Amino acid sequence: MSVSSLTGLSRLCLHTITTRPWNIEQAADHYASAGVKGITVWRDALEGRNVSQTGQMLRDHDLTIVSLCRGGFFASKDSVKRKETLDDNRRAIGEAYELGTNKMLLVCGADPRQSLEDSRKQIFEGIAAILPEAVAAGIRLAVEPLHPMYADTRSAINTLKQANDMDDALDSSNVGVAVDVYHVWWDPELESEIARCGRQGHLLAFHISDWKIPTTDLLNDRGLMGEGCIPLRKIRSWVESAGFNGFIEVEIFSNTYWHEDQSQFLEKIIRAFRDYA
Amino acid sequence: MSVSSLTGLSRLCLHTITTRPWNIEQAADHYASAGVKGITVWRDALEGRNVSQTGQMLRDHDLTIVSLCRGGFFASKDSVKRKETLDDNRRAIGEAYELGTNKMLLVCGADPRQSLEDSRKQIFEGIAAILPEAVAAGIRLAVEPLHPMYADTRSAINTLKQANDMDDALDSSNVGVAVDVYHVWWDPELESEIARCGRQGHLLAFHISDWKIPTTDLLNDRGLMGEGCIPLRKIRSWVESAGFNGFIEVEIFSNTYWHEDQSQFLEKIIRAFRDYA
Repeated sequence: MSVSSLTGLSRLCLHTITTRPWNIEQAADHYASAGVKGITVWRDALEGRNVSQTGQMLRDHDLTIVSLCRGGFFASKDSVKRKETLDDNRRAIGEAYELGTNKMLLVCGADPRQSLEDSRKQIFEGIAAILPEAVAAGIRLAVEPLHPMYADTRSAINTLKQANDMDDALDSSNVGVAVDVYHVWWDPELESEIARCGRQGHLLAFHISDWKIPTTDLLNDRGLMGEGCIPLRKIRSWVESAGFNGFIEVEIFSNTYWHEDQSQFLEKIIRAFRDYA
Repeated sequence: MSVSSLTGLSRLCLHTITTRPWNIEQAADHYASAGVKGITVWRDALEGRNVSQTGQMLRDHDLTIVSLCRGGFFASKDSVKRKETLDDNRRAIGEAYELGTNKMLLVCGADPRQSLEDSRKQIFEGIAAILPEAVAAGIRLAVEPLHPMYADTRSAINTLKQANDMDDALDSSNVGVAVDVYHVWWDPELESEIARCGRQGHLLAFHISDWKIPTTDLLNDRGLMGEGCIPLRKIRSWVESAGFNGFIEVEIFSNTYWHEDQSQFLEKIIRAFRDYA
């Protein structure tokens, strides 16, 4: 029996951005030593590195590479920018393939210079455009709805229903959705929409953190599990009832925690995962 | 022809909190001089005053008292607190009556110590409990959905669909909904839900401001109309197509603007109302 199953960590995955002060080599060492079994790699963590060697390094640490984070940002009023974004998404798919993961998160984008409807149309067209490359590389694209407070510049997809509708419209086994509790916990239709993507086998990722009271920064004030008001276990039970049995990914953006000693923060994450997730 | 119709201000209403540094007497003087025709009174502005005399003072300034802001906060895990809140809402209905308005806004409340479902049940029960007093006083209660970023402590009603569902369940001509663009602009179902409450004659209030990019504070960083990304004219057209022809209420909470000279801020509001609303 492995240490991680003894300690209940066999499904715990960390996003590299959660411990941003560490580079990916430090993250791999620390995660592995602590018994964490999964890692989701943010693209900035790969800068200046050989991607396939980095993937091997992570596997050598007995880490499963759960996802590459992230592609997307398809919406732009500027058509040249949209084309550049498609090229960048194709590069990201290549990186995911070289890294050795089969999943890529999509933060879909929004451009406040145009309507949300126009942004959504460009998101659909953007995903459709990169889908052949995703299929060829064996990468599944996870459409992640973002909290409505990010509808200005980050995503015009703000509910799981919208993500599921987008997934339906794209009609591909290489597309699915991601459920991040921080973005969707408030949604009265969350349970039914989780069941919906689960039925289709399109629930690809489950991200956790907590909503702090008060929240002092729209971007970088996420809480550790148990620190806020998100009904984490209830949402996890919905996700598991929907058939999801993959990694539970801790994705915390926090100016507060990034300023702490990251080893101590990692201990807190593991404790919070055991106690509240 | 009045000055206000000449200048297009006949439907402009200001919330007293928008110019918070002014007391209600100063607000009345300045609004009236500027040609503003409507005022929505926040309860804190009435502190230490005779309410009916204050209502008369506002009418003497040729101001229509559009609403009292606000009742609500029905959700609490603590039953004693819930009972106190009902009493306070009854007092608020009395104040609305004495003031001489026929409308009261409801910010429904949420308690992070319990589920959103429990909070919603208490909101329904709370409104039902105070409804007889509202009917007796001729006050219509406007359920205002709040942005999902306020689902922790301020409102478990976060979409216009939820507000409309609550309104349907309460089934009273003394209940309706309020549409505040700041809270609902991102919602893909906004147009259809505006049409829904309009059809029933239950669209009671329309509040405007703007969503700034970036938004630096979750509560007090609202923008002037035109400063952000809310499609104000499009939403106004939906609201008017739904049959609403009441006051257009400017409700801006802004640490930035509250620190400015309020006379200059009032000029900016009027310019922004003309140019963007």
